[in-house]
Amino acid sequence: MSNIKSVKTEYYQIPLAEVLSDAKHGDHTHFEIVVCRITCNDGIEGVGYTYTGGKGGRAIYSLVEDEIKPILIGADSARIAKLWEDMTYHLHYVGRGGLVSFAISAVDIALWDIKCKRLNQPLWQVAGGANNSTRCYAGGIDLNFSEEKLLANIQGYLDRGFKGVKIKVGKEDYREDVARVAAVRKLIGNDTIFMVDANYSLTVETAIRFARAIEKYDITWFEEPTIPDDYQGYARIAQSTSIALAMGENLHTVYEFNYAVQQAKLGFLQPDASNIGGITGWMKVAELAYINNLPICTHGMHELHVSLMSSQPHAGYMEVHSFPIDQYTKQPFVVDANGRAVAPDVAGTGVEFDPALVGPHLIKQS
Amino acid sequence: MSNIKSVKTEYYQIPLAEVLSDAKHGDHTHFEIVVCRITCNDGIEGVGYTYTGGKGGRAIYSLVEDEIKPILIGADSARIAKLWEDMTYHLHYVGRGGLVSFAISAVDIALWDIKCKRLNQPLWQVAGGANNSTRCYAGGIDLNFSEEKLLANIQGYLDRGFKGVKIKVGKEDYREDVARVAAVRKLIGNDTIFMVDANYSLTVETAIRFARAIEKYDITWFEEPTIPDDYQGYARIAQSTSIALAMGENLHTVYEFNYAVQQAKLGFLQPDASNIGGITGWMKVAELAYINNLPICTHGMHELHVSLMSSQPHAGYMEVHSFPIDQYTKQPFVVDANGRAVAPDVAGTGVEFDPALVGPHLIKQS
Ligand SMILES: [Mg+2]
Ligand SMILES: [Mg+2]
Repeated sequence: MSNIKSVKTEYYQIPLAEVLSDAKHGDHTHFEIVVCRITCNDGIEGVGYTYTGGKGGRAIYSLVEDEIKPILIGADSARIAKLWEDMTYHLHYVGRGGLVSFAISAVDIALWDIKCKRLNQPLWQVAGGANNSTRCYAGGIDLNFSEEKLLANIQGYLDRGFKGVKIKVGKEDYREDVARVAAVRKLIGNDTIFMVDANYSLTVETAIRFARAIEKYDITWFEEPTIPDDYQGYARIAQSTSIALAMGENLHTVYEFNYAVQQAKLGFLQPDASNIGGITGWMKVAELAYINNLPICTHGMHELHVSLMSSQPHAGYMEVHSFPIDQYTKQPFVVDANGRAVAPDVAGTGVEFDPALVGPHLIKQS
Repeated sequence: MSNIKSVKTEYYQIPLAEVLSDAKHGDHTHFEIVVCRITCNDGIEGVGYTYTGGKGGRAIYSLVEDEIKPILIGADSARIAKLWEDMTYHLHYVGRGGLVSFAISAVDIALWDIKCKRLNQPLWQVAGGANNSTRCYAGGIDLNFSEEKLLANIQGYLDRGFKGVKIKVGKEDYREDVARVAAVRKLIGNDTIFMVDANYSLTVETAIRFARAIEKYDITWFEEPTIPDDYQGYARIAQSTSIALAMGENLHTVYEFNYAVQQAKLGFLQPDASNIGGITGWMKVAELAYINNLPICTHGMHELHVSLMSSQPHAGYMEVHSFPIDQYTKQPFVVDANGRAVAPDVAGTGVEFDPALVGPHLIKQS
């Protein structure tokens, strides 16, 4: 029997080793993880989770525990597509994306973990099986770093074997960003993939001036130049520069991705399974990317996304995020000699939290 | 000193007198209210609130209490436009509408209550002062009612002096909806305004067939025929019928309204100050409606919206909602002899909860 017997929720606040800053969210001192553990009548347990930059985790905990759990108990865990619809429309009035998508994500990932365990297959195979590894890059949250520290941080990425790097931009004066981009390109040489991310802090006009100024540094994408709500502003930027635009971490429904694809002239889509409705939501966006001839990419939770990205034939570059969730799990995160991230080859998502590591950061649980 | 000294949050679950159903949310047995009380250093207190159809209230409570309160304490309560931006971007990563907009709404309404009290003026004057009353209609949540009970319910609205009524549609077979529409039009005669609301339950194709079938019953608007995410689907429906389309209760950012106006070919906008970011958000949508030559309307919380609608020169029809929040407040909700709702003439929003009435339904408070 694959029916759901119990749902347990855990809420963690995990401190960062140092303060990390970007242009719009300011300082990050910690991140939050909300874990959802679903146990079926036959004893199979699935683990799902979502994370935040430090705010909203307790509200997500409430959504899972108070609102979603009652519709899960007794339901058939195998009917993921139905449960995803049920969760979506059960909470639609207070949802349509936003915070509700984070809660649905945690639950959906647990359901996929169960599915994979039942099939006794790793996620990269169940989700498509195109490959078992993916190109990736190290995503810095480094806007508050001095140029010296920024370069030392990038050197650290190169030393760890990364073949791609991303830095934050969005300084008060965009010319300072241009100088940092120039310094990083000089450090990494011409064969390392290089992206920039403004965390939607710029006006359309400044974004265009900045993009034109950094074109000569061979930039793979310009991420979130302006607010994600302004699809047509993205299109204006895209039409003014040869640098491809990317976004996705702030789009929390598949419909938002659809409108972005239709209107924003993006070069890369970056859904995050922790906030787009889990693996079910991420797969819908991956197919949307495919049929629009766009590479699929990701934001955050690389320990899980490595399996999803590996599974897809049109995978672009996976972000290895500065929130080190993988350091709190049992399965190590692996980057091979070619700078590719390798999907875990165990049944399930391959993400199992280590109680000895996350336990000290537990704030509450059901 | 108008600086904020304290923020208190209250969470209520209020049972409905009977079960009310619509096509997509199913049965409503109760509604939730989250109240936010802000006190300034000089002793002035503002009261704001939001409500839900029964789910998500505890998560909203957490957002106000755990996430927003810390950025309010000590802030200047008069700088509403700044605080609205601060709240929006403080919670943007888990926000961009959705549940976060409900939490911001509760706080923003409290700030407007303070503003009006400081000016010693009623909200209808502060918000624009076009008028002190507004056209309105009674909005039934009646899809589960037999035709006999539906008609008795509508007769009740007429007896209370309403000059407009709205019913739910979205039955399994749309021809049953057509029959109910015909029966209601026969009962109310030709001089009563009449709308229908499908709560986004229909396919675009069924919505078009249904709309064409009820055109002869002089329908003022067809509300939420299909999912609010499908702006272009709305446009297809609008181009196939002479009945105007309306939506808004499920659009939780001003940008969503902007895209809907540009693409969905709506006839009426229905922002709800409880979930579009409070009075600040509602006013932005009201101006968007004005400059697009559209009447501004509302969804829910009529005890508050009566003041906002009265204030605007382009007000359409205010919904008097089936969640009777006004029955838990001190200020009675007034419909005059012409069927117009009259804005309270007291300093502030005019919505003050009566502890004797809401007290028994309090679940938790800070
Ligand atoms: Mg980013
Ligand atoms: Mg409605």
